[in-house]
Amino acid sequence: MTETTYAKGLEGVIAAESEVCQIDGANGKLYYRGYSIEELAKYSSFEETTYLLLYEKRPRKEELEDFSQRMRESRGLQKSVRNMIRDFPPTGSPMELLQSVISYLSSSVEHQIQHSATCNCRDTLHQISQMTTVLATYQRFREGKSYVEPRSDLSQGANFLYMLRGREPTPQEGRIFDTCLTLHAEHGFNASTFTARVVASTYSTCYCSISAAIGALAGFLHGGANERVMDMVDEIGTKDNVDAWLDKALGERRKVMGMGHRVYKAKDPRSIVMEDMLAELSKQRGDSSLCDILKQIETSFRARMEEKGKPIYPNVDFFSGAVYALLGIPRDLFTPVFAAARSPGWLAHILEQRNDNRIFRPRALYAGSEPRAYVPIEDR
Amino acid sequence: MTETTYAKGLEGVIAAESEVCQIDGANGKLYYRGYSIEELAKYSSFEETTYLLLYEKRPRKEELEDFSQRMRESRGLQKSVRNMIRDFPPTGSPMELLQSVISYLSSSVEHQIQHSATCNCRDTLHQISQMTTVLATYQRFREGKSYVEPRSDLSQGANFLYMLRGREPTPQEGRIFDTCLTLHAEHGFNASTFTARVVASTYSTCYCSISAAIGALAGFLHGGANERVMDMVDEIGTKDNVDAWLDKALGERRKVMGMGHRVYKAKDPRSIVMEDMLAELSKQRGDSSLCDILKQIETSFRARMEEKGKPIYPNVDFFSGAVYALLGIPRDLFTPVFAAARSPGWLAHILEQRNDNRIFRPRALYAGSEPRAYVPIEDR
Repeated sequence: MTETTYAKGLEGVIAAESEVCQIDGANGKLYYRGYSIEELAKYSSFEETTYLLLYEKRPRKEELEDFSQRMRESRGLQKSVRNMIRDFPPTGSPMELLQSVISYLSSSVEHQIQHSATCNCRDTLHQISQMTTVLATYQRFREGKSYVEPRSDLSQGANFLYMLRGREPTPQEGRIFDTCLTLHAEHGFNASTFTARVVASTYSTCYCSISAAIGALAGFLHGGANERVMDMVDEIGTKDNVDAWLDKALGERRKVMGMGHRVYKAKDPRSIVMEDMLAELSKQRGDSSLCDILKQIETSFRARMEEKGKPIYPNVDFFSGAVYALLGIPRDLFTPVFAAARSPGWLAHILEQRNDNRIFRPRALYAGSEPRAYVPIEDR
Repeated sequence: MTETTYAKGLEGVIAAESEVCQIDGANGKLYYRGYSIEELAKYSSFEETTYLLLYEKRPRKEELEDFSQRMRESRGLQKSVRNMIRDFPPTGSPMELLQSVISYLSSSVEHQIQHSATCNCRDTLHQISQMTTVLATYQRFREGKSYVEPRSDLSQGANFLYMLRGREPTPQEGRIFDTCLTLHAEHGFNASTFTARVVASTYSTCYCSISAAIGALAGFLHGGANERVMDMVDEIGTKDNVDAWLDKALGERRKVMGMGHRVYKAKDPRSIVMEDMLAELSKQRGDSSLCDILKQIETSFRARMEEKGKPIYPNVDFFSGAVYALLGIPRDLFTPVFAAARSPGWLAHILEQRNDNRIFRPRALYAGSEPRAYVPIEDR
């Protein structure tokens, strides 16, 4: 590139090396640390996945027990944070609250010592453990309910549902939501992960770096696609309306939410797992209406696109909103839940950035005014 | 660059066009929107500078009055934010608090409407107005003092000193601190401004973007140089110790803080203004010891470097810590004050980013493990 050209949005520019995650878009494969997402979804709890992402290896049984214990002991919210949540204006977005709480948590005494340049931060797990706790508490407070103390005998996913509802979820629900967290735990570079790395590159704390990443995910060009899938489902109403809706939407050049992916040119492997879990939950609930309408959208839309020679597939957001809805998670918590799930990935990238660091400081191309004289306001 | 090479830290890579600020490092010149920092320091209040940065033009008298009025009316802190400050653990850093408060403020009812993709955000000035208010209140609370209501008849700089001390500063002090804010209001791309733009590129709110930028400035590779200048001054003790200290420090290859700049190869124009203000304050206080020791460090260090054919000059951080100290600002608030001063620059970059946006999404070069099998933990 010459002095006067540049790649907008740094598109195609390599910003760093990374060992965390590999996306094979052409073949629809995703690997965390070399392990396929299908196998992780099947065998690895969210805590085990977090261990893998942070320690770069699978834990032995005792290591995982230790690690899980530490994460579970970090779930509770201190009084001042509960007050922040209680006082948060109802007009605010839970993403703003989450961003705020995570940097506030950086001040916790017992973790301050970990914030040096060389700290490996693997011991500062409050920011991961407490993300879902904050969200469950936020939801309870806005429903006028009281804080539920976390339970240390439940997985990260099951504990979230427990704190949200005030009663224990079924083992099936707990497992499904825990797998949802695993599916979203990492996905290479994107605006939020890149933000986490840029902030970490100044040797800021991992809390402050993750808080910043939440800020990026809050933007509607980044997070929120599964909310919009569910808005679309609401708009369509029933399975039988799908074709008429698609005719109209495509005629108006509207986007069909949750279909297609910038990187995956085959089926997003996460969407396959998500679809299975949706089918399982629908069967358990004895109500397949959500599942049916989504399948109909997929089938009809794909058929139309294939006619045009443009194969297209559902991405992870296509089925995840329906899964969350069936688990009783309010729609405006979908993106915050995504942030909670992504926190191990962000932390893994922060650690990797620190490990071989150079502060991110790209150049700007000046395109403004030539020097000009400023005169006092009264003389203008 | 080939597929396997990249510029670490995006060094030398152009990330965007910008009209906000021009730095002519070779000639020691800095311009905001084409106007030189010397003239701005002389003629333009911090509020006027903020107007210039955000509206891309100098205000007319009535425009400035209007604008200042709006900024001044936004200074007060709501109860919930005062509680956050009061409850903030004494072990926490005020940067963490500031980052947390600014995203919390994003929820303010009257500004929520401004957060759409196309909003120009020029009307959401709480995040600029309240930065210094938060810091003054933080300082008072940790001294066991009460909240001081902001005054709308004082400049941004004078109001900060008023709220910090609980009594009105002299006009000279108010003017000097207001000029300090102007000197730091903008400085092109760096890790924090780049962070603000990356977050803004997702169409996140300007509060969330600025909060993220604060997180980046909190890292010790970015902010904090003027604190370290003052630590050095403490270590040296008196003017007469300078040469011996320099001999030892240079022998140990220690860095002399506040000297030299990545971009300026001539005198940093901000340091000239800062030095004049330090001299003025020292004279008014009848105590030139801080000024004397800094001047001695500059003279002796520059002489040594010139002998080696390496001309070096003070940067803005060299004198600013001493100015802040004479104004009674505690050392750990120097970087937070910098953040408060830089907020108009961040906001100007956020607006510019939104105006011609592409989400920042660079690539990572995968350097990790090849695909490998994951087996359940009990079968390993």
